[in-house]
Amino acid sequence: MALINENFLKLKAGYLFPEIGRRVRAYKQQNPDKKVISLGIGDVTQPLAPAVVEAMKAASDEMGKIETFHGYDDGGTGYEFLRKAIQHGDFQSRGVEIGLDEIFVSDGAKCDTGNLQEIFGIDNVIAVTDPVYPVYVDTNVMAGRTGDADEKGRYGKIVYMPCTAENNFTPVLPKEKVDIVYLCFPNNPTGTVATKEDLKKWVDFARETKAIILFDAAYEAFITDASIPHSIYEIEGAKEVAIEFRSYSKTAGFTGVRCAYTVVPKELIGYTKDGKAVDVNPIWNRRQSTKFNGVSYITQRAAAAIYTPQGQKQIKDIIAIYMNNAKTICKELAALGYTVYGGVNAPYIWMKTPKGVSSWEFFDKLLNGVQLVGTPGAGFGASGEGYFRLTAFGKPEDVKEALARFAKLKV
Amino acid sequence: MALINENFLKLKAGYLFPEIGRRVRAYKQQNPDKKVISLGIGDVTQPLAPAVVEAMKAASDEMGKIETFHGYDDGGTGYEFLRKAIQHGDFQSRGVEIGLDEIFVSDGAKCDTGNLQEIFGIDNVIAVTDPVYPVYVDTNVMAGRTGDADEKGRYGKIVYMPCTAENNFTPVLPKEKVDIVYLCFPNNPTGTVATKEDLKKWVDFARETKAIILFDAAYEAFITDASIPHSIYEIEGAKEVAIEFRSYSKTAGFTGVRCAYTVVPKELIGYTKDGKAVDVNPIWNRRQSTKFNGVSYITQRAAAAIYTPQGQKQIKDIIAIYMNNAKTICKELAALGYTVYGGVNAPYIWMKTPKGVSSWEFFDKLLNGVQLVGTPGAGFGASGEGYFRLTAFGKPEDVKEALARFAKLKV
Repeated sequence: MALINENFLKLKAGYLFPEIGRRVRAYKQQNPDKKVISLGIGDVTQPLAPAVVEAMKAASDEMGKIETFHGYDDGGTGYEFLRKAIQHGDFQSRGVEIGLDEIFVSDGAKCDTGNLQEIFGIDNVIAVTDPVYPVYVDTNVMAGRTGDADEKGRYGKIVYMPCTAENNFTPVLPKEKVDIVYLCFPNNPTGTVATKEDLKKWVDFARETKAIILFDAAYEAFITDASIPHSIYEIEGAKEVAIEFRSYSKTAGFTGVRCAYTVVPKELIGYTKDGKAVDVNPIWNRRQSTKFNGVSYITQRAAAAIYTPQGQKQIKDIIAIYMNNAKTICKELAALGYTVYGGVNAPYIWMKTPKGVSSWEFFDKLLNGVQLVGTPGAGFGASGEGYFRLTAFGKPEDVKEALARFAKLKV
Repeated sequence: MALINENFLKLKAGYLFPEIGRRVRAYKQQNPDKKVISLGIGDVTQPLAPAVVEAMKAASDEMGKIETFHGYDDGGTGYEFLRKAIQHGDFQSRGVEIGLDEIFVSDGAKCDTGNLQEIFGIDNVIAVTDPVYPVYVDTNVMAGRTGDADEKGRYGKIVYMPCTAENNFTPVLPKEKVDIVYLCFPNNPTGTVATKEDLKKWVDFARETKAIILFDAAYEAFITDASIPHSIYEIEGAKEVAIEFRSYSKTAGFTGVRCAYTVVPKELIGYTKDGKAVDVNPIWNRRQSTKFNGVSYITQRAAAAIYTPQGQKQIKDIIAIYMNNAKTICKELAALGYTVYGGVNAPYIWMKTPKGVSSWEFFDKLLNGVQLVGTPGAGFGASGEGYFRLTAFGKPEDVKEALARFAKLKV
């Protein structure tokens, strides 16, 4: 008798974004004449940079000729041309040395942040911020690393670190014993960033407690403040305790192209139950070479094009469009009397819901009242209740229209 | 203290193909003047079909324009245009009805066959053929569904079904209680196929015992015999008990493009420990929507192009090249006195090693003696010892040269 993994039955309702999708589809079906504008799911709207498109077309042509055809990406961790571009463009340029065999190219940071927990034991205590990107939590629930959810949606055994306006959305070092800590800066959903001092605190904590930090830097390209680190490896000693996730989804509009990478340093150590130190890098390599088969050659050529001078200029122009959206949203919502956070070093605007309405209630009011879609803060965790996430990824004209609609919203 | 998943430490040596890669690289470094020909790892050599290349270039152009840009594939299970092409081209055309929401597009059958076990409980007993595609076994080892390996590389708790010349490489229904059965037809590595009667036996067995069959049909495009089923769903009742994996890797040369799909029928039932029936389809959907983010739009357009009349003709011409290789290999090796199997309805030729040498010994003799690379049967399991796998995916001129070298081989 085939038994299902009953941990899946612990999961509360649907994954956040499909749930939003369902509500929006239902509204559109009932109101086919209304134009719904989404500042919600976090998908980008600007097309790919011309350098990226050209690289994909050239790579497609290569794949059509026997002399230049590419089959399996040997080892499945990424072509050397891309890993070299990453090594130089994302790390050496900021004074950080990362080895080519520490870089694992993949088809998305969602996959990587979701899959990485597999290489760790089931008995680890994980710590997450609250609110948090749901993938970190849900994948640990599926793996059986948590208890059941309580009425607020908090799972047993997970250590939640509340991040609210009261603590400037900055997680406090946990007092409990924790083994694996998920951090995301610039933060999704709050738009908060971490200074070097903030990150140093975490690196020191992990070194002292032999914990490992899973650092999600998917939004580093949106940092505007020169003093904010883009990589956790800018902090001394971080290679011993941190894995870093990067993505081209928001950096270069690759949500529909699928490319990302993860850095697992050779210095990183995990432990067996009886305390023996074990290198983590070869274990992740084994996981990837067994369960993954690399990223499309065409996609890897596209990603490499991002690092060319042309590519860099083009993606920066696109990011500037989004950051201008963020600025406009923050300014105009503040003028309407809303309390807003983020939006300066991040593409996310985290707002307080007005008059204390719940975040799903605000979602429904926005959708039904003025046909706007955002993301309910409660979807990111119990401490997200009373907040609402907007993203800066809309088309500028839609953002303008959305703000005009906000002005008309009656709560 | 971060604990690693100690199940990874149970894994024997490296994953087969990286290990072969390491030996070949070492040989080439020491013998830079020698031309090594590979009939080994199973990568294809013919370029992509022109219809596929054109589709990718057109899709790349779409991604470069704001009006036709595509972001996230909503839901991550594949664009409807591709799922409709699959529904019609792979199933309705053979008299099988599969719903669109039963098709999950992915980036590879290796990923799917590796990830699927996650949705099943840790206490299931799995059954595999021996020899077997190593991914089925290794991913269950990683998940903790097995004991340690014995001296032959067989893991505790797994039920192995030996497939050797003595039983025509046809697995016998296990006498032990098993919950999940992996089957692959046309078989990798033996090249064996299953008749309708063979598959019916398995479907009946699964229905009686409430087991689930994971059916890998990655090589169905190589079936030449009209009486052999391409899908397990051609067998009545299979939808209640079987998941099917398909891939474009060998069908259309997508090893470097990455696209596949999995069918999880709505009728398929798993069980909780206390015997409650649970639908499997929504659980896989939840797994995919949480840990995966869909396949590149460009790649999905490429896959859809395979189903056009042009695309069909072009990929059939490519498959004919490979099947002609297979025929030549079988014929000439037989003429040299080797005993060969497969190669008729499959791109794999499974040969007995001569004079009882071990399969890794034969690997080294072929590499060092005549600079040929194949795959040692023992890499696929204990019952693969004494066998050796060749693939038909080489360039015809390389296959010719490889056979000339075989004639010179002294064992």
